[in-house]
Amino acid sequence: MKFVVARSEILTRLESVSGAVASKSVKPILSGIYFSMKDESTIKLVATDLETAITTELKPKHIDGSCDFVIDARLVLEIVRNLPEGEVIFETEETNVVIRLGSAQFTLPTMDPGDFPDIEAAAGGLDFTVSVSSVELMIDRVIFCAARDEFMRNLNSVYWEFDDGYVRLVAADGFRMALSEERIDLSIEDHFLLTLKSMRDLQNSLKAAMSDIMRVVYDGSRVQFFFDGTEIVTKVVDAEFPDYKKVLPKSFKARVVLPAVTFSDAVRRASIAARLGSDSVKFEINDEEFKIIARSPDHGESIEVIKTSKEGDNIIIAFNPRFLSEAVKKVDSEMVELNFVDSNSPLQMNPVDIQGYTYIIMPIRLI
Amino acid sequence: MKFVVARSEILTRLESVSGAVASKSVKPILSGIYFSMKDESTIKLVATDLETAITTELKPKHIDGSCDFVIDARLVLEIVRNLPEGEVIFETEETNVVIRLGSAQFTLPTMDPGDFPDIEAAAGGLDFTVSVSSVELMIDRVIFCAARDEFMRNLNSVYWEFDDGYVRLVAADGFRMALSEERIDLSIEDHFLLTLKSMRDLQNSLKAAMSDIMRVVYDGSRVQFFFDGTEIVTKVVDAEFPDYKKVLPKSFKARVVLPAVTFSDAVRRASIAARLGSDSVKFEINDEEFKIIARSPDHGESIEVIKTSKEGDNIIIAFNPRFLSEAVKKVDSEMVELNFVDSNSPLQMNPVDIQGYTYIIMPIRLI
Repeated sequence: MKFVVARSEILTRLESVSGAVASKSVKPILSGIYFSMKDESTIKLVATDLETAITTELKPKHIDGSCDFVIDARLVLEIVRNLPEGEVIFETEETNVVIRLGSAQFTLPTMDPGDFPDIEAAAGGLDFTVSVSSVELMIDRVIFCAARDEFMRNLNSVYWEFDDGYVRLVAADGFRMALSEERIDLSIEDHFLLTLKSMRDLQNSLKAAMSDIMRVVYDGSRVQFFFDGTEIVTKVVDAEFPDYKKVLPKSFKARVVLPAVTFSDAVRRASIAARLGSDSVKFEINDEEFKIIARSPDHGESIEVIKTSKEGDNIIIAFNPRFLSEAVKKVDSEMVELNFVDSNSPLQMNPVDIQGYTYIIMPIRLI
Repeated sequence: MKFVVARSEILTRLESVSGAVASKSVKPILSGIYFSMKDESTIKLVATDLETAITTELKPKHIDGSCDFVIDARLVLEIVRNLPEGEVIFETEETNVVIRLGSAQFTLPTMDPGDFPDIEAAAGGLDFTVSVSSVELMIDRVIFCAARDEFMRNLNSVYWEFDDGYVRLVAADGFRMALSEERIDLSIEDHFLLTLKSMRDLQNSLKAAMSDIMRVVYDGSRVQFFFDGTEIVTKVVDAEFPDYKKVLPKSFKARVVLPAVTFSDAVRRASIAARLGSDSVKFEINDEEFKIIARSPDHGESIEVIKTSKEGDNIIIAFNPRFLSEAVKKVDSEMVELNFVDSNSPLQMNPVDIQGYTYIIMPIRLI
């Protein structure tokens, strides 16, 4: 078997599937990418960690014979990355694959394709299309709030909800929550929970998407995304996502609107002293001034005073500065709106003039 | 006391001295920068780790009163980095320094300037000027070959030699050596050894140098560099640098000239397989071909064949690919020359058509 493919074409495809390769696995086969024939002009590339599988299509310039082998994902990716632009030749020689371009030649041992797990597709059920760019934006707006800890299965994930003509993504880690929604032409009520890792894989693969249409299929236990000859199938997380609606404040007692950059810069500077002390920044907000205060017993304090107007009650409240920074960074609007209830209730942060996403941040109790 | 200074001006000066701040020290005062008056319009900034001291001059727009305090170097640097462009106000208030710009205000505790160590200047002896750009280039060409291990005092350093109208810098770690030299209008024979850290500090401070003239003073135990209102004084290392002339091959039996980029790319690709195996790449050189071979028992092999002409004997020899890559990266010439003696003797790598620097790399013994 031999095929010839442009280096840029195979690099894109390898990068697209490599997210699903198991990072550490007891099964060596899961560190590989499975190359097989889809049809006489198309090679299928598959990688999986048993939770998520990514399949993509490679269109070589020539294919001689039939392709059926598994090679180490990281090694082939690193080799192709380090090749110059040109036509790469892949050729099987006994139990090896030889990769050639110009003066360079690599010989890689193959693994038995018989050991590669079968990929089960989602079998019908919910079936609809969405815009790739909308999904990319929604994932980007919420994913950083998901819990990093893999043992918190219900929070190490992103919740997808279809409700009353909206698709809604929610992520939370117990200290903060992000919610992003888009109108969608679909009158269903349903929801599923997908792992943070599968959402990162989807995000990574979507970068290479050329068309803006994505098909989504959900059969009750698996979700499958189809776009541009790439398929991602992932098992839903069998855990209960918290009732996010209970976290959303019903009404507010104070509201401040200020330039997102001013707020972001002030929080970043306050973080310097906060990091050396209690890792909290305090807001003191009255009718004319928004004070951001951070103290460290040994390293002094920082006070930043922003002149701004406030509606409603005066408020004193404290937060982890990282949660503020990470959320305001995603606010894609000139002005950010901060809505408060009281010192012990969550802050709601959202862009002004842009509907569809919001951040909820729990305060740190003031002593 | 109060002074007002442009943020960019104080940032440059803080970055210039901060290299000398002790990274970990039992003496807290060494984590500080000492601010004091040089004259009525100039503030002196000093930092030291007791081996090396950097002193620089700050020219504020206004100074009220006399300045004499020590503040934490990392904290003030991080604060100034995170301020917007503008005029920064420094003001002492009791035992604190308050830093203000626009809406931001930081209060930093000060340390007692009486605890700050005295900086002893080099007292006469060898005294000459060199070009800043020459010294920068020479340091850059040799510094990566110095041993990282601080306990290898004679190799965790850069050797300076003045010999027959040349200034010569040499660094070595036992596996490789770099030598760089420049003609200098100075008829002295002398040498000193300076720590790798002090050379990095000098490199870092020279980035901000505006003029190309540097004065160097050596009194037998200290070397002092003067440029643009900045002074670096550093103790010489009291250890014997190996006789580098013994390492330089006297004659060669094989010579290959090839494009530096071709060689560098080929070594980088060979490193992929080498890293997973023995961490060595083998050269097989005959009259027509330069083969670069790397093998890993479990991950296959790479062979790169470069068509090139060779003078002299055929040769088979192996190297640590990192040493080859790091050296060829510094070869500032289109063509690189590789000179060999035999399989067990060091390789000499040097640019073609540019005099004044060369790399010596020990081979790995072939089994």
